[in-house]
Amino acid sequence: MNSNFADRLIEEGTRKNSVLVVGLDPDIRYFPDFILEGIDSSSDESIAEAIYACNTIIIDAVADHVIAVKPQLAYYEVYGSYGIQALEKTIRYARSKGLIVINDAKRGDIGSTSAAYARAFLGNGAMSGDMVTVNPFLGSDGYMPFIEAAQENHKGLFLLLKTSNPSSYEIQDLKLENGDLLYYKLAEEIEKLASQTVGVHDYSFIGAVVGATYPAEAKQIRTKLPHSIFLVPGFGIQGGQPEDLREFFDDNGHGAVISSSRGVIYSYMNRTTEWKKITLPEMISCITEAASTAKDQINVVRFNNVPI
Amino acid sequence: MNSNFADRLIEEGTRKNSVLVVGLDPDIRYFPDFILEGIDSSSDESIAEAIYACNTIIIDAVADHVIAVKPQLAYYEVYGSYGIQALEKTIRYARSKGLIVINDAKRGDIGSTSAAYARAFLGNGAMSGDMVTVNPFLGSDGYMPFIEAAQENHKGLFLLLKTSNPSSYEIQDLKLENGDLLYYKLAEEIEKLASQTVGVHDYSFIGAVVGATYPAEAKQIRTKLPHSIFLVPGFGIQGGQPEDLREFFDDNGHGAVISSSRGVIYSYMNRTTEWKKITLPEMISCITEAASTAKDQINVVRFNNVPI
Repeated sequence: MNSNFADRLIEEGTRKNSVLVVGLDPDIRYFPDFILEGIDSSSDESIAEAIYACNTIIIDAVADHVIAVKPQLAYYEVYGSYGIQALEKTIRYARSKGLIVINDAKRGDIGSTSAAYARAFLGNGAMSGDMVTVNPFLGSDGYMPFIEAAQENHKGLFLLLKTSNPSSYEIQDLKLENGDLLYYKLAEEIEKLASQTVGVHDYSFIGAVVGATYPAEAKQIRTKLPHSIFLVPGFGIQGGQPEDLREFFDDNGHGAVISSSRGVIYSYMNRTTEWKKITLPEMISCITEAASTAKDQINVVRFNNVPI
Repeated sequence: MNSNFADRLIEEGTRKNSVLVVGLDPDIRYFPDFILEGIDSSSDESIAEAIYACNTIIIDAVADHVIAVKPQLAYYEVYGSYGIQALEKTIRYARSKGLIVINDAKRGDIGSTSAAYARAFLGNGAMSGDMVTVNPFLGSDGYMPFIEAAQENHKGLFLLLKTSNPSSYEIQDLKLENGDLLYYKLAEEIEKLASQTVGVHDYSFIGAVVGATYPAEAKQIRTKLPHSIFLVPGFGIQGGQPEDLREFFDDNGHGAVISSSRGVIYSYMNRTTEWKKITLPEMISCITEAASTAKDQINVVRFNNVPI
């Protein structure tokens, strides 16, 4: 049995006693003044510098409490090539701190184009992290190139299965002819691939995105997809609660990584209406505490599953 | 009745007597030697320069015969921020030649993140073109931000409906409880929005992607979606034939724009096994001829629909 990227996720989780992933969704409206000092808000280049500066602060603040960072591509693309430069530097910085990088890109296209996306995100280029989120709407010839690239380069991916947003039901929960919901059918397809690509801990490098906002669905999906690690967004700010996370984990407290974005990176906004004026040390301590608290809340839930 | 971006597409189509869109999917393996001279193939920056140089040649060669160019984002992201720089310069160059720019990005995410993507592609930034392709898998709160941005900025979008690739049936053709196929159901949702947002020519700025490889499906979709312009990829190299395009058009020869990528931009590869050695004038003349021929083939088919 060869080790795969799921093993890396699980072993990092054990070493750090954390399955927390912090989303890096930069929104300069929420940056403290000291980061924006001297920044020209009409210049993409200048804003991109502020984004990178903010990301390094966040990464330093959370590094001991999280296993991965998850840049959300949209927030970098808004600033064009300068934004992508900030992303590339962020990826490099996060990796230098020993963190796994999950690019939340939700890419998906037809075969040869998906292969190009797979090279962009799971290759050796400047935008490549360790894992990427993939949209399966175009079918298997759209996502197989990502699976092949992940296998070849010892990386991983998460296929969108049941996303955290309110309208995810519109397509993902459509009831099929045989009575199954669409995401069940898709889960069966993923399991066929995942069961053939497990590593030392019996998990595949082919994971799935399952929103924290749908705990009832997660219980059923966990059963259908025993070999896929779940990337679970929507914890905290989107309405998912710690107790909702129970069903995402297996009996060993494995099988899921939990993502929080604004609840950690902008945690200072809940502290004081004067958050614009906070200092660098205050910002660091607030973000570190938010990450540490989220990690602990998740651990209480995931280890409750372990039979005593 | 206010004019919208569908009117722009239709009026440009009439003015140029063309509904051809050329895909800009740069693959340096297919570039002639003269473009690659002095290029360092291990440097993303150097490759990105070659890509931009090649795109300007293509744009000059096709400008009289096409209404739009369609950069395929994956082929730029492979080269990271340098690739995106090449994309931005390409967009600027194409617009300076009066061409519409359709970013084939297939983006889609949850609400606030989709709003960021919509700003990136339908805003005023360097990566923004005139239209963008959008993946609807996350439901309406994923695609509504694109529709709102398009409406606000007088731009347009194409929602993926029935894509041209062989495995598109796996999700898009799933049979639902009521016997309908998934893409039918999605077409109904799109029509609700499209029928409320028509312009002077009775078409909405909310279009749909329907592959040239599925002409039988297109006939049914045309009926279901009378107010959406179709972006039709897969013509030429992916197996779609001119006669297959008939059903995509309405009785006035409107309602679809037809995309060809490799069949035009790498047309010199079919001419001679010595294509690596072609000169700039030979490259231009070959691409111009391929675009002109494709335009004419499409016009024969679309105007056959017009009652005499």
